[in-house]
Order: sequence, then C-alpha cells, then structure tokens
Amino acid sequence: MRGAVLHAPGVVRVEDRADPAIIEPTDAVIRLSATCVCGSDLWSYRGIQEVDGPSPMGHEYVGVVEEVGDEVTTVRPGQFVIGSFFASDNTCEICRAGYQTSCVQRQGIGALGAQAQRLRVPLADGTLVATPDVPPDDLVPSLLAASDVFGTGWFGAVAAEVGPGKTVAVVGDGAVGLLAVLAAKQLGADRIVAMSRHEPRQELALEYGATDIVTERGDEGVAKIKELTGGLGGHSVIEAVGTQESMMQAIRSTRPGGHVGYVGVSHDVALPGDELFFSHVHLHGGPAPVRRFLPELVDLIWNRTVDPGKVFDLTLPLDDAAEGYRAMDERRAIKTLLQP
Amino acid sequence: MRGAVLHAPGVVRVEDRADPAIIEPTDAVIRLSATCVCGSDLWSYRGIQEVDGPSPMGHEYVGVVEEVGDEVTTVRPGQFVIGSFFASDNTCEICRAGYQTSCVQRQGIGALGAQAQRLRVPLADGTLVATPDVPPDDLVPSLLAASDVFGTGWFGAVAAEVGPGKTVAVVGDGAVGLLAVLAAKQLGADRIVAMSRHEPRQELALEYGATDIVTERGDEGVAKIKELTGGLGGHSVIEAVGTQESMMQAIRSTRPGGHVGYVGVSHDVALPGDELFFSHVHLHGGPAPVRRFLPELVDLIWNRTVDPGKVFDLTLPLDDAAEGYRAMDERRAIKTLLQP
Repeated sequence: MRGAVLHAPGVVRVEDRADPAIIEPTDAVIRLSATCVCGSDLWSYRGIQEVDGPSPMGHEYVGVVEEVGDEVTTVRPGQFVIGSFFASDNTCEICRAGYQTSCVQRQGIGALGAQAQRLRVPLADGTLVATPDVPPDDLVPSLLAASDVFGTGWFGAVAAEVGPGKTVAVVGDGAVGLLAVLAAKQLGADRIVAMSRHEPRQELALEYGATDIVTERGDEGVAKIKELTGGLGGHSVIEAVGTQESMMQAIRSTRPGGHVGYVGVSHDVALPGDELFFSHVHLHGGPAPVRRFLPELVDLIWNRTVDPGKVFDLTLPLDDAAEGYRAMDERRAIKTLLQP
Repeated sequence: MRGAVLHAPGVVRVEDRADPAIIEPTDAVIRLSATCVCGSDLWSYRGIQEVDGPSPMGHEYVGVVEEVGDEVTTVRPGQFVIGSFFASDNTCEICRAGYQTSCVQRQGIGALGAQAQRLRVPLADGTLVATPDVPPDDLVPSLLAASDVFGTGWFGAVAAEVGPGKTVAVVGDGAVGLLAVLAAKQLGADRIVAMSRHEPRQELALEYGATDIVTERGDEGVAKIKELTGGLGGHSVIEAVGTQESMMQAIRSTRPGGHVGYVGVSHDVALPGDELFFSHVHLHGGPAPVRRFLPELVDLIWNRTVDPGKVFDLTLPLDDAAEGYRAMDERRAIKTLLQP
C-alpha cells in the first residue's frame, strides 16, 4: 500500500509500505476513506521534535473495516468506523474515568502511520466507533475531524468547564482552536472570544459561533480579554497552541477560580509556580481522550448539527502529502485532508 | 499594644506598636484572644523571602470585636469573631464564585500584623464570621486554626476533589498537611495516605483519619503511592509544602484524570509543561479562600466534631514569639499558639 513517511525535517515522501495485517486477536484492519495532516505532525516536520530514522506519519483516520481479529466483537467488516489517535481498551479504571488517552494498555496510532491506504487498529473494541451507516461523501471530512481535532477542541472546552453564562476565550486559531470555538458554542457558552489575526480563520471562527475576535497576542491580548470581562478575565480559556507564550496568555486571561483547558501539545513550557499559585485558576488538559466524546460527536455530525469538516481547506490525493505538509507549514492551509 | 516584628532573618522581637484604630467605615478593631505563627511566616524568617525593613508579623487571628466603623452591619462589639488572612468584600463576582482571597478589594492581613494584642480588620462585613457565642477556652485553638491552616487544608482537599470512594495522598506533614488529612476524612475519602517521616506528626495524622503512612519522599514516595493504588496513583493528592520536589511528588502521585490540590505557597517552582500535559491531572490551588469555608468549619468545631487545634503543640505568651518561631524553624514544634 501507499503511505507517507517522514525521512528528515521537511522531507515527507509517499512510498510503498507493507500492508497491515491482524497481529493481535483484538486488532482490526481498516481501509481508509480519508486521513489528514495534524498541526502536531509539524513539530517533527519542522525538526523541533527529533525523529529516529524514517517514520510513518499520521494518526487521524476514518474508514471501512476490512478484517477483524478473533476477539473483536463490537465492529465487523463493512462498517464505517472512526477512532482516536490512541488505541485504548475502554475498560480499565482510567478509561472508565474518561481518560482513554492514558489507558493502561494505550498504543499510539502515530507509530502505525495513518496517512496511508490501510491501517491496523489495536484494541479495536475499545477504540473504534461505528457510524449508523456508511456515510455520504460530504460527511466524511467532519467524521475525520472527530478523530482528533474536533475531539481535541471539545476536550479543551470540557477541560475549561465551558457552559451557559460563561465567557470563553480561545488561544490559537489552528483547526483545534477553531473547533474549540464550535465546541464552546455547542456547550452553551454566552460569549466566545477567538484570538486570531488571520482573516480566513477569523471568518470560520465567527461562523462556528465566536462573538468577538481579538487580534492582539501576549500581554496585549490578555489586556484585551480583561477589558471585555470587566477586568476579571474569562471564566474558561482554551489553550490550543502549546508554547510558553500561549500558555501564559491563557493563564493570565483567566479569572481567579476560572478554568484553563490546554490541549496544545506542550513544547518547552515551564510554568512559574508562584504566578500559577496566585492566579487561582484551574488547569487541566493533555492528550484529548477523544474516545470519551466520539459517540456524541458522531451524533452531532450525523444529524448535521455541526460541520467541523470545514477546517479542511485543502484536499489532496495521498500521493501529494508533501504539498499538504508544506501548505500547513507555511500557513497557506488550516488543515489538509488526504484521499488515499 | 505589644506586637511581633521581624527585623531581619531570624530576628523577631515583640515590641510596642501603635494601637490600631478604625480608618475606613468598613473596618473593625478586634482584641485578639489568640494568634499564631504560620509555616509561611518561616519563608521570611529564614530569609528565603526578602523583607523591606521591620515588618509586623502574623495573619491568623480570633478575638472579640472592640469597635466597628459606621458601615459595618454584620458584626458588633462584644462578638467573638474569626477571619481569614485576606480581607475580602464577599460581594464581588470573584468572592461570589468562592475565591475571596482573590477578591477585587482584597487586603492582606499579614501587612497589618496579627501577632499582636489588637488588629484592625478591613472589610469587616465580608471578612469576619461571628461564633454563636463567646467560646469556652478549650475551643479557641481550633477556632484559631480555622483562620488559616484548617481552612487551607480544607481548600486543598476541595481543590483535589476529595470525596467518597477516593484514595487521597497528602504531601507535607506541617499543620496544613495534617489538617488536610482531617478535611479528607470529613469529606468522606476512603483511604488517606499521609506522607511523613516524623513520628509525632504521623501519630496526629492517624488520629485525624490517615489510613496509611508513607515515609518515602520524592520518586520513592511516588513509587509507594503507585504500589498502594494498583499502579495508577491517587485520585486526589494534596500538596502542602510549595517546593519543586513536593509539587512534582504530588503530580506524579496522581492518576490520569485525578486531581492535585496545591496549597503550599509556591517558591522557586517551575512546572515542566510536557510532563504536566501527559500526566492528565487536574491542577488547582493557591491562597485558600478560607472565608468560603468558615461558616462550615466553625460549625464543625462548635459541635466538637473536629479538633483542628491539636496542631498547636506549643503555646507561649505573645512576648515569647521569638521562641515560637525558633521552635517551628527547628521543627521542634508543628505550630505555635501565641497568647496576647
């Protein structure tokens, strides 16, 4: 089969890879209907995160089950399924508490390389969620978004305890930030402030439910949020970048007693204990346990209540993955969908 | 009046200070029945926190109202009252959300010096809680404990979302840590692990409801907590020290999805973003909004359900405050009560 492989910073090639097969009786093999490039793939693409030799890429996927292992009982060949970027058993104590990305048996999908034609999904019963039917083509991008970015934005909003009566700020205008706006809207937030200085992203943020746009960043961005909230800061702030600046911007934009939900993969961040202590904020986040939310998100998409697939503003054949990476790296695209 | 003043690291003197008087119409002046030395006073006593010139010390107090300003309506002369270490209006949006120590009008009591015979309490209506009557002498230490250390331990437990069915670990065996054990017991925790290697403190922890004692610290302490919790970590971990080591010990002792409540005043702490991200813990804490809990804590003490005053294992006349500091600094005493 064909699959994308990162050979060195900036060098992605689509090449022949071995076809996946059932290894464990709990595995499934799926034929991908769509896959995509993640903002977090750019950390290694840019050489910020080191890579040991050629690495298959990709961890977002939707597709049709081709084969299942002997112990798989909840999905069967022919079903259209979605899973998250970590396989999980969904039965351990940690999964039952809703933290499937910290499942005691978790396995990263990234190492298996979902930017490909086929994918082996471990722990299929705990990982995959089947849609009611094979979806029409126009729903595929939104279902794919649920595999990571929509689920991650949703977790950011849940971790920030977004809800009715609250003012929410979103730091970061990538796909996750934009979908955090959509999640905040669905979760009933009163006011949603998107922090963005890129016009096409501002437009999508407004379409997804943002009530205000703040273009300032850092301390100026914080001052602006304070100005919009009677000097207090937001009740809920979602961080969707992962840098020191964005984390501090999020913490400082939150009122005492408020909640920061952080879902940007943290890189070179050191949080000053004294400032955090006196900020009085709640801090929660990490790799989104997308599996917790998948049934609900699939419903919202299936009923056409939401359209998270709009974050894909570039669609390419899988073979053109390199251009998909380049476009996102240069911020020409929010997110690239790849057709296997 | 007499009052304790810190002149330089290690140099506390009790000397004549000006009698406090009503300055604002929202003030009250109280005659102290008891005051005490706080673990956090030791940061400046030890020279770790710098002090600008002679500083009146102390921020924990109970006593009888002597005089109130014209606008004070909820307390009156003759009443026995307790307040917390920050004066708060208890009416602003932040106070109403339960974060009185971040009140938009907050004023630190520390700067006013509660280790004294009398104290001016700003924002008396929002700050002070009167007891049902003037208490018998034997209840005074427990009521004094509610002014800070009991309220702080309680907040640590609330911030860590302690509750029935949960395993709780407490990092730190000072007065706050010990009272966090007591709070965890009251809040219905199943299992309470006190991390302590000092025998008298272990005994009090067991008396307050600890079910297990762990003497190991750092990574060994973490391993021990994991061992006691099927490899997962505690549901709720309360941090009551404020150092890098204790914060990391708390975070690493908490299971994914669990809660760290941190109330040790943070000194030279930098939390690594990536570790925090992948830990999946909830982090909340800061200066305890003791005022939120005071009515409930006073009830528990008044009904003799709890006896937080046992943390005072040394009682001295106010004039011997210097010895009170020394005893705590040398860990000869858990906490010193001073009689004005």
